[in-house]
Amino acid sequence: MVTFTETLEFNTSKEGDILDLTGDVKRVVKQSRVSNGIVTVFVPGSTGALTTIEYEPGLLQDLPAALERIAPSNVYYHHEEMWHDGNGRSHVRASIIGPSLTVPIVNGELTLGTWQQIVFIELDIRPRRRKVIVQIIGE
Amino acid sequence: MVTFTETLEFNTSKEGDILDLTGDVKRVVKQSRVSNGIVTVFVPGSTGALTTIEYEPGLLQDLPAALERIAPSNVYYHHEEMWHDGNGRSHVRASIIGPSLTVPIVNGELTLGTWQQIVFIELDIRPRRRKVIVQIIGE
Amino acid sequence: MVTFTETLEFNTSKEGDILDLTGDVKRVVKQSRVSNGIVTVFVPGSTGALTTIEYEPGLLQDLPAALERIAPSNVYYHHEEMWHDGNGRSHVRASIIGPSLTVPIVNGELTLGTWQQIVFIELDIRPRRRKVIVQIIGE
Repeated sequence: MVTFTETLEFNTSKEGDILDLTGDVKRVVKQSRVSNGIVTVFVPGSTGALTTIEYEPGLLQDLPAALERIAPSNVYYHHEEMWHDGNGRSHVRASIIGPSLTVPIVNGELTLGTWQQIVFIELDIRPRRRKVIVQIIGE
Repeated sequence: MVTFTETLEFNTSKEGDILDLTGDVKRVVKQSRVSNGIVTVFVPGSTGALTTIEYEPGLLQDLPAALERIAPSNVYYHHEEMWHDGNGRSHVRASIIGPSLTVPIVNGELTLGTWQQIVFIELDIRPRRRKVIVQIIGE
Repeated sequence: MVTFTETLEFNTSKEGDILDLTGDVKRVVKQSRVSNGIVTVFVPGSTGALTTIEYEPGLLQDLPAALERIAPSNVYYHHEEMWHDGNGRSHVRASIIGPSLTVPIVNGELTLGTWQQIVFIELDIRPRRRKVIVQIIGE
């Protein structure tokens, strides 16, 4: 049983940007030589989130539209009193989706569905340089 | 330290169907003979989700009602432009709840609360044959 | 590779109370002497939830406001027919945020962002005595 960790780094372009990390995570799983175990994907930061989705252009618009219902752009956020940086909604949306995702590895492969990709969601209101931790535990 | 994996298979009956997987997950934990560790439950697919809930008939109606507020049935989804299959809301709801759940095992038992069950939520708009991965890591 | 488990216990003061568990989780990680691995934080109970947030007073109001949009106080919950205890919204909100959180440990440290804390959210409508499981797997 071993652990294997790698940090992905990338730029996001704007609020609501959704990036497909599946290829990178698969590469790290292969490098780890783990056959059976789990991969944990985690964003160190409170305005980004991780989940899975079918990565196609329509849903990349539909998911942000739902987040706008949960934490609208046009309501007041008390977070404003702290930093005056206009991203209260970003924090709220990130806390609800969550910063981590765990996927089982079986026979050296991620157990994702055919139309299911691992994605990072940029919820901040400006482009960011992001790090995401990919950590594998298994044998 | 070992890993132990089993795939559950079952049919769902309709959109919003919520199935209690607790008994199955407990059985797999027992079979693994792991005393201390974690169980990861994961749905390979982008229109189903996993979480915990008190499994009683009222909440099985109340949870879908909240999902209808987040991603309503009667709004337009751009996902429609891809597949014309009417399940844009299913994908959005699944991404927000998430495809995985991790529960600690202590002294051979899941650390669930007395009124807390592990559930699969069918979010697709038609009955489906589903697989759920149950993977244990521990000693 | 080892497992190490501790149970945190604390009181909450009211619905929407958000408690910063980061210091406690860091202490358990240190006690475990694990350098590389994961910590799983889990609430045994169906009316509490775990996530991360920037722990500052504004967001502690903003996050509950978003949960009120998802599962409002003033709508009818069928859960009422079971227990008549008025906390249907608590269960629904807890299921959507989720009961577990997994954070990678690298070089003996949690990989949290600078402004990112691990929090427990009291979603029940009355103060509660709470237990949270902190379990580490690693080497």
